[in-house]
Amino acid sequence: MSAINPWATSGIKDYERLIKEFGITPLPESYEELMDNKYYRRGLLVGHRDLDKFIAEAKAGKSVAILSGIKPSGIFHIGSMITAEQMIYFQKKFKNAHLYYAIADLEAYVDNGQSLEKSLEIAIENVADMIALGMEPDRALVYRQSGALVVSDLAFIFSDDVTLSMLMDIYGERKISLYFAALVQAGDIFLPQTKPFGGPKPVLVPVGADQDPHIRLARDLADKHRLDLGLIPPSSVYHKLVRSLSGEEKMSKRSPQTMITLSDSKSELKQKIMNAFTGGRATIKEQKELGGEPEKCPVFDLFMYFSKDDAMINKVYYECRSGRRLCGQCKEEALELVEGFMEQHRSRREAAKSEAKSLLIRSAGQVLKPPI
Amino acid sequence: MSAINPWATSGIKDYERLIKEFGITPLPESYEELMDNKYYRRGLLVGHRDLDKFIAEAKAGKSVAILSGIKPSGIFHIGSMITAEQMIYFQKKFKNAHLYYAIADLEAYVDNGQSLEKSLEIAIENVADMIALGMEPDRALVYRQSGALVVSDLAFIFSDDVTLSMLMDIYGERKISLYFAALVQAGDIFLPQTKPFGGPKPVLVPVGADQDPHIRLARDLADKHRLDLGLIPPSSVYHKLVRSLSGEEKMSKRSPQTMITLSDSKSELKQKIMNAFTGGRATIKEQKELGGEPEKCPVFDLFMYFSKDDAMINKVYYECRSGRRLCGQCKEEALELVEGFMEQHRSRREAAKSEAKSLLIRSAGQVLKPPI
Repeated sequence: MSAINPWATSGIKDYERLIKEFGITPLPESYEELMDNKYYRRGLLVGHRDLDKFIAEAKAGKSVAILSGIKPSGIFHIGSMITAEQMIYFQKKFKNAHLYYAIADLEAYVDNGQSLEKSLEIAIENVADMIALGMEPDRALVYRQSGALVVSDLAFIFSDDVTLSMLMDIYGERKISLYFAALVQAGDIFLPQTKPFGGPKPVLVPVGADQDPHIRLARDLADKHRLDLGLIPPSSVYHKLVRSLSGEEKMSKRSPQTMITLSDSKSELKQKIMNAFTGGRATIKEQKELGGEPEKCPVFDLFMYFSKDDAMINKVYYECRSGRRLCGQCKEEALELVEGFMEQHRSRREAAKSEAKSLLIRSAGQVLKPPI
Repeated sequence: MSAINPWATSGIKDYERLIKEFGITPLPESYEELMDNKYYRRGLLVGHRDLDKFIAEAKAGKSVAILSGIKPSGIFHIGSMITAEQMIYFQKKFKNAHLYYAIADLEAYVDNGQSLEKSLEIAIENVADMIALGMEPDRALVYRQSGALVVSDLAFIFSDDVTLSMLMDIYGERKISLYFAALVQAGDIFLPQTKPFGGPKPVLVPVGADQDPHIRLARDLADKHRLDLGLIPPSSVYHKLVRSLSGEEKMSKRSPQTMITLSDSKSELKQKIMNAFTGGRATIKEQKELGGEPEKCPVFDLFMYFSKDDAMINKVYYECRSGRRLCGQCKEEALELVEGFMEQHRSRREAAKSEAKSLLIRSAGQVLKPPI
């Protein structure tokens, strides 16, 4: 059993492996509870841990939390958008749910050498994106790791529960500050369960499938602190990693030309999409005969992420597979779809900026409380 | 070059080694600046790093800090008293100096499994001892590590400057949480140099000689953050370790029967001192002929620590060496001296308790400030 590295740019090809080796539960085929979730319907959710338990508690009206985070090393890309949309989906679904959004500025410091000041600047953009995507600020807490005393103290407490070899098993051989960052992230996951935030409760963490190591660590730590802190193991739901426009496995902030961000201008979108790799064949003749391969195609993915309409996706898929749809036309349509979304998003984000700033400042007071 | 372990119960025998291998500077033989320091005059200070630089800056009227800490895992013993008295000596000497006293409750958590709540309880006693010993609260900040955001953030930043092998070199092979504790302690040392506390300044750390690894690490980190944070390497002054009453090298909270605490009752003092190992010979006859060995004697040490009068110490020393002083009489005198001190200290500490509590609470607000 080798380690999955959540900090790597390249992702995990084989989701089966997560299910078999690490015990992620596959989602049921027609899961009534998630039929209103477009990512679920479109097969973009890979699996979960204890999602059913979380949903049962949330439906029973208990106080629950939805939590995820972002490393503020750049503007929102599609991956951050999916995580955000999953969080917002559950926030809207359960009116008794509080959303926690962690700005991982300490991780950005050790992983990217980015100053805390710069992270704050970018975090304002990120939170504005969250609001533009529909987050309800009244039931949300966004905070920076560097400003969260409870999180640091939890990280320290957790450092006493792990050994070096345990961290190496989970994360592979990394520099010591990244192990530290992992413990801080565990601190984030348990923030909603601390005294200043009302004590133990069910928490759901929607993340990309490559983030499962953090969840495994957190669940292990919860078991160790069941008695003294009363921690409940977090639930999780995983989405597939976003392919890069060059067809590689995971879109990454590290190769900006092959990823779409929520701040791209129309001309940037055009350039990126028109230059994208596709699932098309070598020649038009071949494509017409054999049909394209949408399964391999990052342009087809754009319909999956941005279309509001399942029927439209089906149409694109079958037209492509049957050879009736060629890549040039398809790219034009994808561009129009994405640009339509972006146009609306840009103005919403602009409008949300001052609220984002005040949300970050407001919550600072809340997470600064000492844990005892 | 092997590691010195500051967490071990047994200390370092050979102070020469610190000087030769680790580059501690010996103190000059008649150091004008320290002639009013009883521990210096009595040969109990082992050496220093940049003490002369610190004194020069302090005399020039610059804003300076004196800093040390305590692991709140028990009440004050003689070792904590010496550190405290050294801090207070420098606080009184330089009116432009601010005293920082770190309550290492995170270290107590990982090293002793002690809850943060319990540490707070003991910290109140410790701070009352500080006040009873003469600390001036108006120029002091006492704080708990678990309540100090700046310290946690610094620890995290420093974690990116060290490698595992570097930590192993300094501290030997330890559990990961103790490396973490060492970085938190480095955070403590630089607290006075952060923005919320007025930025870079000379800092003097009086500690037992076994704590030098922490100073070495801190000085190394200061060099690494000279440019971005402007950190100045801390100065230090080291006292010899306190022998246990059984004659072993270092007094420790882990063998309570062989250490004197500042909370001992008269009858406890009597029992401990009367049962103490001495530098006496096997028989009275032999002692009268050969004289005793005060250099080996923890009862003689008590005169060194508690007497206000250098002449008294000389008297005891020469009477012992010449065979004119026997151990029974000497123990009686030591008991009287120590109990005289304790009687006064007990009532001072009782009077200081509510101030100690409010000092711990007051300072919480100051160290909770985010670093940016």
